[in-house]
Amino acid sequence: MKIALAQLNYHIGAFEKNLEKMLRAIEEARAAGANIICFAELAVCGYPPRDFLEFEDFIRRSEQSVQHLAKAAKDIAIVVGAPSRNPVVEGKDLYNSAWFLADGKVLQVQHKTLLPTYDIFDEYRYFEPATEHRVVEYKGYRIALTICEDIWNIGNENPLYTICPLDEMQAQKPDFVINISASPFSYIQARERLHVLKANTRRYGIPFFYVNHVGAQTELIFDGGSVFIAPNGKLLHEMPYFEEQLQIFELEEAFEASAKEAPQPKEKLPLIHRALVLGIRDYFQKLGFQKAILGLSGGLDSALTALLACEALGPENVLGLIMPSEFSSEHSVTDARQLAENLGMKTEMIPIEETFSAFRQTLEPCFAGLPFNVTEENLQARIRGTLLMAFSNKFGHILLNTTNKSEMAVGYGTLYGDLAGGLSVIGDIYKTEVFALSRLLNEKGEIIPQHIIEKPPSAELRPDQKDTDSLPPYEILDPILYQYIEKRQGPREIIALGFEPTLVKRILRMVNINEFKRYQTAPVLRVSPKAFGMGRRMPIVAKYLN
Amino acid sequence: MKIALAQLNYHIGAFEKNLEKMLRAIEEARAAGANIICFAELAVCGYPPRDFLEFEDFIRRSEQSVQHLAKAAKDIAIVVGAPSRNPVVEGKDLYNSAWFLADGKVLQVQHKTLLPTYDIFDEYRYFEPATEHRVVEYKGYRIALTICEDIWNIGNENPLYTICPLDEMQAQKPDFVINISASPFSYIQARERLHVLKANTRRYGIPFFYVNHVGAQTELIFDGGSVFIAPNGKLLHEMPYFEEQLQIFELEEAFEASAKEAPQPKEKLPLIHRALVLGIRDYFQKLGFQKAILGLSGGLDSALTALLACEALGPENVLGLIMPSEFSSEHSVTDARQLAENLGMKTEMIPIEETFSAFRQTLEPCFAGLPFNVTEENLQARIRGTLLMAFSNKFGHILLNTTNKSEMAVGYGTLYGDLAGGLSVIGDIYKTEVFALSRLLNEKGEIIPQHIIEKPPSAELRPDQKDTDSLPPYEILDPILYQYIEKRQGPREIIALGFEPTLVKRILRMVNINEFKRYQTAPVLRVSPKAFGMGRRMPIVAKYLN
Repeated sequence: MKIALAQLNYHIGAFEKNLEKMLRAIEEARAAGANIICFAELAVCGYPPRDFLEFEDFIRRSEQSVQHLAKAAKDIAIVVGAPSRNPVVEGKDLYNSAWFLADGKVLQVQHKTLLPTYDIFDEYRYFEPATEHRVVEYKGYRIALTICEDIWNIGNENPLYTICPLDEMQAQKPDFVINISASPFSYIQARERLHVLKANTRRYGIPFFYVNHVGAQTELIFDGGSVFIAPNGKLLHEMPYFEEQLQIFELEEAFEASAKEAPQPKEKLPLIHRALVLGIRDYFQKLGFQKAILGLSGGLDSALTALLACEALGPENVLGLIMPSEFSSEHSVTDARQLAENLGMKTEMIPIEETFSAFRQTLEPCFAGLPFNVTEENLQARIRGTLLMAFSNKFGHILLNTTNKSEMAVGYGTLYGDLAGGLSVIGDIYKTEVFALSRLLNEKGEIIPQHIIEKPPSAELRPDQKDTDSLPPYEILDPILYQYIEKRQGPREIIALGFEPTLVKRILRMVNINEFKRYQTAPVLRVSPKAFGMGRRMPIVAKYLN
Repeated sequence: MKIALAQLNYHIGAFEKNLEKMLRAIEEARAAGANIICFAELAVCGYPPRDFLEFEDFIRRSEQSVQHLAKAAKDIAIVVGAPSRNPVVEGKDLYNSAWFLADGKVLQVQHKTLLPTYDIFDEYRYFEPATEHRVVEYKGYRIALTICEDIWNIGNENPLYTICPLDEMQAQKPDFVINISASPFSYIQARERLHVLKANTRRYGIPFFYVNHVGAQTELIFDGGSVFIAPNGKLLHEMPYFEEQLQIFELEEAFEASAKEAPQPKEKLPLIHRALVLGIRDYFQKLGFQKAILGLSGGLDSALTALLACEALGPENVLGLIMPSEFSSEHSVTDARQLAENLGMKTEMIPIEETFSAFRQTLEPCFAGLPFNVTEENLQARIRGTLLMAFSNKFGHILLNTTNKSEMAVGYGTLYGDLAGGLSVIGDIYKTEVFALSRLLNEKGEIIPQHIIEKPPSAELRPDQKDTDSLPPYEILDPILYQYIEKRQGPREIIALGFEPTLVKRILRMVNINEFKRYQTAPVLRVSPKAFGMGRRMPIVAKYLN
């Protein structure tokens, strides 16, 4: 029995494009002698389709794709994820289903039981959970079809559900499990995934085939890493991260004693690096854009963002604007220019003194006698945002936002200024991680000028400004933010870790009162288990810890 | 048996403030001889608390409030909504519960069974559904405690759930039902709510007491409208909309044949009017701001927004910036001034020619020879946004966004320009509704100058521009948008209604490709059944209908 896993990059709502890609994979798998080919969860429509699932027209097109695939299921069976309709009026109108297609028709449909509804997931918003669990009988094998979360109640210290679909199927004695997934990347995900899969194989004692999405959909990045695991928990094959691939596995291999484990490296920073590059590339490709623009301040955040953009899009497609003001240090321009030269990207220099001065004159009648303060700082940031957007409009660039997660968290940034942009590239990595990643990417030769990494971070919006004027050092700030954001710890718990109580309360308050800024910023490429954006939903007017 | 319904305005996370408010209501109800006082769903923490529910610290504070209320439950029983912990490791960690407090302690806790997870609701994200349903026995009565959605499977053509909590309780023969709710306003909600309540009373044949939140939490507006309904479906009392109130009802009245129906008017536009005023007022009060600023273009959207802001905050707290350019008509300034005079609000005049010219000079080296296009239009809008934010920063105003729903839908607006602002006031009402509401508010005497209502809408960003240059007339655009957004109809269904196919496809495409703009705009006060914002979740990179 040969099983093909098709780890593909789908595009949400692009039914024809997705279908063509699957048909090509079916051809290839059939030619290579595969008996079954498996596509990922909701592959026909892409994941996550979000509220498009509420459109009758969207479901109809999805069904048409499934019918088309069914016709292609000749001399090969197909497992594919697609929504299906709930014929019962009570309950949600759809199921999230694994379709088993064979002999030119739909042989069986298994619905998803465990519907993730936390962090970035909203599945119970759309789907009714399955209540029936039947193995598929095909060519003398009994196959347990499961969908992503269905197997995540095992190997989990705090299980979110009260039932386990594979427990329900045990009496039917399945020979192996196919799991079709849409499991987005975070830097801990590949490890967790293998932990869960191994816990499952150990519990049920049968081989597992697991196929995942690859590619980015707005903020969500899917890393692939599809696997074939032996009944004893041995990892027989792990498909590459961040790449499309079709691989065919021999079921019998699962029972060979000589099989060796072949895991890929799972170090945090290299994974984040590849994820961000893919995230940028797919955002542009799927929106039909080639060119990016960003402001180069001479600081590290914009330097790292430029580096990632050049890698994703090619340096010929990335333009950096250098926009010095009267408060800019001399090195801000020389460092930015050196960076651009190292990367081979173009820059334009647009000083902002004249526009800044025009604004101040225009506002003089109303602001007369009032001191220079955050208003004038924000004004400079907004002039830069406006210049970047003018280029973006005139030449068809997407503006990349360069804000890091530490700044996003405490609201250290100007709405419509440096918080502007169509995509936030490093908004899910803390400043200390920005340093670490930049150092790593410099290891094979200096790309980011060393001076950019070494100089003290500064917004350069007033004379001699440093980030540490208004923020604690990032080595203290970031761990507090991590405890609050990723770990959902409260003031009591964070203070108990040894942080200074007044500082902890001040930081938590800053995070909460800046919810309004994050509400209006670009989608953030998600690489951590808790990113700003769709996976973290906070009320703006709350009066909690502030 | 006397039942008090406390229809109160809570503040999310403001545990002490909410508790004090409830303790005052308990005092008042006890003094008036009430036997039971009912507070709304999740009243102790405010609704919706969203991801704060994932913080142990937040739950701990919520429990402390419940314990405090339990001690106050002397000579009166208290029904109050608060999260409770799920003691079982499997399943979600919390329940959404109705606590019955009496004799100084917790007498019983009933969990919510039906967890709304659609539109603006995310309850299955946090809560495990109840599996036990026990009536509360108190003073010889058997009381069925239910929480909001628990009763919404009745009177619903397409029920979302497969069970009905009150069916489960029928064998225990409850004498009456208490429902504690957090049911946000839309212009059809009051009618739907009564329909559902009446369907319930007719099915179960017992009286219903229903208590709702009132007040706004960011984009969600709660209208109150708490009710007491007789077993025969007669509406005995409906508490006022948009106001805090404590009322005490005599259970026996439910069985008096002479009781008359006393419904309030439910006309769409007057309801929207009151909702928006409350929405603005609460946004400012709960964030601790007094003053609003907005751009007065001389057009209708900013005129209506100004009127609503003056009503909500007092005209002395509203500042209008008039920011003419070379493309502004003369009447844009005179109309704006006349409006401000009618409203009694202040204005400042800040022409943008000089800053516009400074930007164009600065950009000249890069834009030389390229024609004036949407870049220069957006530039003007962003200069205005920047000026408004400068005032906001300098003097502590919140900037009100004046974009209507038709513009939001098709992306007719400039990010960081006219799409800027902390709160979108009319972003959930279509342009045709803007006209209708403005006419209504002018009925008792002209506030919005008639010329503003009558002149053709224009962005005035290039010579002689009209909205209809790039958009169909709003009388055609709005019904198409309504079918797509509110009704989730696809191109096939909308064309079948008689709209021109090319136009329909063009409009739907415009809606979809502008998702990126809506992602970055302010929270929109929700008054329709489908508003942009938390209740409508769309992928940005989708390739569906575009």
